[in-house]
Amino acid sequence: MIPPEGKGNDHKSAFDFKLYMIRKAESVNAALDNSVPLLKPLTIQEAVRYSLLAGGKRVRPLLCIAACELVGGDEATAMSAACAVEMIHTSSLIHDDLPCMDNADLRRGKQTNHKVFGEDMAVLAGDALLALAFEHMTVVSSGLVAPERMIRAVVELARAIGTKGLVAGQVIDLSSERLNPHDAGLERLEFIHLHKTAALLEAAAVLGAIMGGGTEEEIEKLRKYARCIGLLFQVVDDILDVTKSTEELGKNAGKDVMAGKLTYPRLIGLERSREVAEKLSREAEEQLLGFDSDKAEPLVALANYIACRHN
Amino acid sequence: MIPPEGKGNDHKSAFDFKLYMIRKAESVNAALDNSVPLLKPLTIQEAVRYSLLAGGKRVRPLLCIAACELVGGDEATAMSAACAVEMIHTSSLIHDDLPCMDNADLRRGKQTNHKVFGEDMAVLAGDALLALAFEHMTVVSSGLVAPERMIRAVVELARAIGTKGLVAGQVIDLSSERLNPHDAGLERLEFIHLHKTAALLEAAAVLGAIMGGGTEEEIEKLRKYARCIGLLFQVVDDILDVTKSTEELGKNAGKDVMAGKLTYPRLIGLERSREVAEKLSREAEEQLLGFDSDKAEPLVALANYIACRHN
Repeated sequence: MIPPEGKGNDHKSAFDFKLYMIRKAESVNAALDNSVPLLKPLTIQEAVRYSLLAGGKRVRPLLCIAACELVGGDEATAMSAACAVEMIHTSSLIHDDLPCMDNADLRRGKQTNHKVFGEDMAVLAGDALLALAFEHMTVVSSGLVAPERMIRAVVELARAIGTKGLVAGQVIDLSSERLNPHDAGLERLEFIHLHKTAALLEAAAVLGAIMGGGTEEEIEKLRKYARCIGLLFQVVDDILDVTKSTEELGKNAGKDVMAGKLTYPRLIGLERSREVAEKLSREAEEQLLGFDSDKAEPLVALANYIACRHN
Repeated sequence: MIPPEGKGNDHKSAFDFKLYMIRKAESVNAALDNSVPLLKPLTIQEAVRYSLLAGGKRVRPLLCIAACELVGGDEATAMSAACAVEMIHTSSLIHDDLPCMDNADLRRGKQTNHKVFGEDMAVLAGDALLALAFEHMTVVSSGLVAPERMIRAVVELARAIGTKGLVAGQVIDLSSERLNPHDAGLERLEFIHLHKTAALLEAAAVLGAIMGGGTEEEIEKLRKYARCIGLLFQVVDDILDVTKSTEELGKNAGKDVMAGKLTYPRLIGLERSREVAEKLSREAEEQLLGFDSDKAEPLVALANYIACRHN
């Protein structure tokens, strides 16, 4: 097998994470493509498909599938939950991009949903995706997963969306923009990231573990792992913004500083931010001890990938 | 017991429907009041509570509870589903009222959600209520209802929201406003009402029947009953708009005609509209034959109430 270009050999394992990511993203994209019913009215299906199939690394579905495989399940058992999590993620992006929220014109190099389909369709496409996530997961998994486990998955997914999850994160993020920097502390920053980013990663990992038949202990370890890599992702993002050039990042460097955004380096300095990143990275990997080391490889590699990325 | 003022004695049964409605609405309001967690950020909880506790007749929860009681369940078993259905209803009202949709300033005599809390909060409050519906129903009912039945309830509720339900209805309704009247037929009108109104009434009745342990046949009869009263409600609404004065209605009479809105009288005339209403009323009541006639009284009365109301 010819290894794909740019394969990273800089960590212990010979496991080919990039190839694993590409393969899983292909399966997920095929499943997502089949998940949207081609019913009338077609306008709304088009709006839903436009954002759902716009690409992206599919990190959340990958995490869901890898967690399921870690506890002894397989890709097929995790797939409906993996798709559901991506639907929720897409729904939140569509609503966050609206003029009344972050007012974004571009997302993943394409026009945002409301720019193409109008604000009314974008609100409805987000709502439709929220509902489709619950419908898709419960319909596709009936027969594959015990009903008790399905119910737990529904509860976890719902919690990750609402006022204990994504919605809470977005509310505090919006209110922080209007805030005096002196009033914005580390606690607020962590609240935003734990809710806007970590909550859905947590749901992805926990849903995978539930679907795969994981024990309580396994589910809780994967929950903690996901929360750590969720925060890690944000700390690294903030560090890259102040240490890398625009060319290296492929996006405007220093834009967080320019925008006066709440970031780790701004609140605790660059050195301490790096220490926080190392601590989170260590804590994430610790959660994977005790699992079969071969099966844990994708998740070890995912934590490394997030910690060591350069853009 | 002193009967409440305005008690209607104009149908066969001595069953006191108005008192039944008031009692159920009180139980539902108390349950809804307890259903929103008082967590930070409080702004979003306030926005959610503002619309969820804004009153209204609570017809959907009442239908859910009455369907549950009809198949042998009780109010407590149905309550979490009844609340979930009202949360979905409220979520759709908040989003439908947004400036990019129906741009409404008032709802139930109060300012709409976005007028009080801002558009961003209104979008998020709607999203939070969608998620809360699934969380509340599954958490509260675990232990009361078999997991297999809970899963069915989740599927039914999700379908009623998305592109097979409320969202589809709103999409066609929005596109009809821009339509030449000659292109707008009875089929389109029924599509809108079946999706915007009947789908959630159907979910309310079906969820009640599922929670109460109803058989397949019972569930399907209640589904049909709810679809009939959903359409009936709209036909009667359209008839009242052209036959009653503003004073009698308590809202502007003739406003549908003025707005060039698609209505039954406009499409098929007043006489045939009345025939449609009678047919739907008959069909609804037929679904209740074969059930215990005492337990069916609230649903017989509900169909009568919708058919015979004067405002």
